[in-house]
Amino acid sequence: MRMIGLYRKRLDAFRGYVERNGFDGALVINSENIYYLTGSPFVIGSSGGKLLYVSKEGADSLIVTGLDYDEAHDKVKDVELVKIAWGEKLFERLKKVAGKRLGFEENFVSSSLKDSLRKDYELKPLKGTLEKMRAVKDAGEVAKIEESQKAADRALEKASKVFKEGMSELEIASELEYNLRREGAESYAFECLVASGYRGTYTHGMPTKKKVGGGEQVVMDFGVKVSGYCSDMTRTIFFGKPKEEMVKIYQVVLESQEAALRAAKPGMKGKELDAVARRIIEGKGYGQYFGHGLGHGVGIAVHEEPGVRPSAEEKLVPWNVVTIEPGIYIPKLGGVRIEDMILITEKGSRDLTGFSKELMVF
Amino acid sequence: MRMIGLYRKRLDAFRGYVERNGFDGALVINSENIYYLTGSPFVIGSSGGKLLYVSKEGADSLIVTGLDYDEAHDKVKDVELVKIAWGEKLFERLKKVAGKRLGFEENFVSSSLKDSLRKDYELKPLKGTLEKMRAVKDAGEVAKIEESQKAADRALEKASKVFKEGMSELEIASELEYNLRREGAESYAFECLVASGYRGTYTHGMPTKKKVGGGEQVVMDFGVKVSGYCSDMTRTIFFGKPKEEMVKIYQVVLESQEAALRAAKPGMKGKELDAVARRIIEGKGYGQYFGHGLGHGVGIAVHEEPGVRPSAEEKLVPWNVVTIEPGIYIPKLGGVRIEDMILITEKGSRDLTGFSKELMVF
Repeated sequence: MRMIGLYRKRLDAFRGYVERNGFDGALVINSENIYYLTGSPFVIGSSGGKLLYVSKEGADSLIVTGLDYDEAHDKVKDVELVKIAWGEKLFERLKKVAGKRLGFEENFVSSSLKDSLRKDYELKPLKGTLEKMRAVKDAGEVAKIEESQKAADRALEKASKVFKEGMSELEIASELEYNLRREGAESYAFECLVASGYRGTYTHGMPTKKKVGGGEQVVMDFGVKVSGYCSDMTRTIFFGKPKEEMVKIYQVVLESQEAALRAAKPGMKGKELDAVARRIIEGKGYGQYFGHGLGHGVGIAVHEEPGVRPSAEEKLVPWNVVTIEPGIYIPKLGGVRIEDMILITEKGSRDLTGFSKELMVF
Repeated sequence: MRMIGLYRKRLDAFRGYVERNGFDGALVINSENIYYLTGSPFVIGSSGGKLLYVSKEGADSLIVTGLDYDEAHDKVKDVELVKIAWGEKLFERLKKVAGKRLGFEENFVSSSLKDSLRKDYELKPLKGTLEKMRAVKDAGEVAKIEESQKAADRALEKASKVFKEGMSELEIASELEYNLRREGAESYAFECLVASGYRGTYTHGMPTKKKVGGGEQVVMDFGVKVSGYCSDMTRTIFFGKPKEEMVKIYQVVLESQEAALRAAKPGMKGKELDAVARRIIEGKGYGQYFGHGLGHGVGIAVHEEPGVRPSAEEKLVPWNVVTIEPGIYIPKLGGVRIEDMILITEKGSRDLTGFSKELMVF
């Protein structure tokens, strides 16, 4: 399902930056940036098997090892694919094609790699140019993100039919992921988080053998990748009749989230949108228990630009996709987080998440 | 299941390096290194929420944001836990505790972070010290890796009972992961790879809707985390009667793998062990189709030291855990990879993987 010339168009846009800044070319090593510019697939967290050189003249090369060649060969069409010989090094091969003044990703190139590269190149920071490009989606990317989110919505719908008191967090995860795969998840956007009861305050709590019941909440934060693009959602449900305070917290979080969903629009700074949600939580006296930002961009990576947090000075623009995920976490008691993903439109925003936010008791 | 003083022991061993090299302290930002030294859990691929300062005087601090505080509070005992105030920056807080001469992870600190740190510190590379420590496991770590591998073995055993021709790669993944979770996988060591037929040559092929049958092979490469430690295994099975050439390839890969398993022992260089397997594949005329190294270390990370590849000059030592995973991948035809994880012992090695390697047809 590749659009002819799509990557060529992105490469040319990026090339414009390279030219305007007087570089001979740019080195791209971040897997997500390489995917954005070429469609070359990657495994999250793996690195080192390939690099992309974008030249000011338009002679771009994706240099890969034998490990990634076959798949790249079938999928990458808009850039010359170079397979290095067995024993050859990627960066040795780069020398054969790259010019002297080289743009580089200063947030991804390690300090040791930079020390090695500076022997051969005059290095120029790319200043997050690719990440900024990625923050503004095109219609094709939004379609993929929606496809990814719809798969997650359908899977939660199906999995929830078997949820019941006494299940463990791991059993909940097993049912959820089984359905995510069946709905088309080629991989997970990040490690599935399932945190119940007192563990609900673990913002990054991974599932355990802990059984859930007696009115405990279960925070489920998960996402998948479909056609290379991530989804990200959180729902908090209850196993058994919830305590009154948890019901109240749930309502405050939901009210805060819905206010932010209504308020989101282009021209608003990330920190202003964060403040809309935070003000409500603070107003109800829970301010100290909302210890993270309201949201983040989603795309090829599950966390990308733009940020929606108290320090985010950048304005939202149409075609941004961001999460809106306020939470309240009270030590010993538990936590509630509710997260939707929205598209910033010309006039406001559109919610890409379909699953109900009514308080659900299993 | 925390052993009192375990992390203190590791911190002190690392502190020895810091002292011997005349540093005031060391900054640790890599999540896996932080976990090794403190037991502070992390989500694979996430970063930025915490940093560890190890001082030559023994006053160590794990500095975290509100995002990770509650879980770290319950799990981290051997180091002072510092929660930064809302709006405060981790690196601002670091300044209050850190000395001038600061060891840093030159392979993980980005060039932009280094530029920022060098304003306040005299930076000294840690030269992979923590990664070298992590390469040599203790008995507790090996027990966790075995637990993780046994969960994977049991899950594949159970999942394979429902494997049959006509299933899609995604359905295969769904059955596998369902059982992995039920057997205790707190997360996956990496994205589950399921690659059938011509896709078998995609070393990193993620599952798709492609149906499998007619004698096609399915390469399944997967691992989980249990108690913070990874497993990693690959099995190649057939859906329908395999082609003769695929049977031959399977036998060559297996012969090559078994030779390496028999040969593995301390004192052997990684490249020597790689050569044992590679020689057999080359001898049968498939040398050009084995385009990756033989194996890699496994522990807190699924890819860690030591390497077992043609460029690996380092000698294996007792308590290393490494994979042995030769493969043959023939474009258009398919691929076979077989992977076990072994512990290097005083005299040789012990296979930690239990699942059968007989050629299986479903």
